[in-house]
Amino acid sequence: MRIADAALALVEQTGDLQMVQLAKTLGVAPSSLYSHVDGRAEVIDLARLRMLERMEPQPPVTQWREGVERLLRQLTAGYTRHKRMLPLIFGSTISEERTIALYEPVFAALLEAGFIPEQLRLIAALIDFQAMGLAHGFPEPAMTENIRKNLPAYTASIDHSQYSPESATAFSAQVLIRGLASMLREEHG
Amino acid sequence: MRIADAALALVEQTGDLQMVQLAKTLGVAPSSLYSHVDGRAEVIDLARLRMLERMEPQPPVTQWREGVERLLRQLTAGYTRHKRMLPLIFGSTISEERTIALYEPVFAALLEAGFIPEQLRLIAALIDFQAMGLAHGFPEPAMTENIRKNLPAYTASIDHSQYSPESATAFSAQVLIRGLASMLREEHG
Repeated sequence: MRIADAALALVEQTGDLQMVQLAKTLGVAPSSLYSHVDGRAEVIDLARLRMLERMEPQPPVTQWREGVERLLRQLTAGYTRHKRMLPLIFGSTISEERTIALYEPVFAALLEAGFIPEQLRLIAALIDFQAMGLAHGFPEPAMTENIRKNLPAYTASIDHSQYSPESATAFSAQVLIRGLASMLREEHG
Repeated sequence: MRIADAALALVEQTGDLQMVQLAKTLGVAPSSLYSHVDGRAEVIDLARLRMLERMEPQPPVTQWREGVERLLRQLTAGYTRHKRMLPLIFGSTISEERTIALYEPVFAALLEAGFIPEQLRLIAALIDFQAMGLAHGFPEPAMTENIRKNLPAYTASIDHSQYSPESATAFSAQVLIRGLASMLREEHG
């Protein structure tokens, strides 16, 4: 859909989504744009869907651990390609059924494993927040003689850093899955 | 420091930090601004420090679980008040020793507990990423007849949602701490 592609491109370029500017990019009058969409919120929702549609299709999920890790990796990859969309999509309602469908198999696997419905939205947020951060990346470290002298634990963390986008993603997946498994055990313990 | 306060206010207002605009806000010539700071990166670093200095002072940390939870809550509170700073601070080097000092007691407690130096930066990123997401908040859910018919697990997640900023923060803290405890046990197991 032309509107979604143009919106994604505009956000990449300007960091924001103004309807008048979007109409201009599309070469139509604002009134004509509003005959296709209800408003800015719908355009953001369509752009989010387009962003997620560009992700690789995945085989069906049957196991919750696999589902959580795969969702984290999918979202991280999608968000990394469209960082400037993040403030917009985290502030606007998801109403596109096809976007929500992305979460359905993971939610189904979690319920099947024994997680309770009350936890699902919290788990989705946990994964989404981690993906958002991984897409932004962690600030580069600095090291000075003073830091080395006064902050030994921080200095050790830099001297022995194994941080990379890939290691951080793998570490996040591990901690989240182990933490969730521990909550599941307690519930049934 | 006037520069840091003005920079924070400018980012809140415009979502960006332009040096020429900052000089204008301060009522000085850009050349005069550059006699106080080296450049934009240093201003961002100072603004980040000012943002974190506004957080409540905390008693000393002795236990890693407490340290992780408190750091998560501190960062979430600070980031929530200054959301528009997030894209800037996650893209720029931390060199201010006083900012780094915030992480030092948690890092020391983690090392004391048996975590290895290689894990510290990954753990800091994990916490920071959750704080960033919690500050943004999770998109509002939508519910339609079609979604209710086609996506039963998602529907259950909305019908039984216990998501709130506070419950999401508590859930993140729990999952992170339990996940990290599990990695620590394995290392020493």
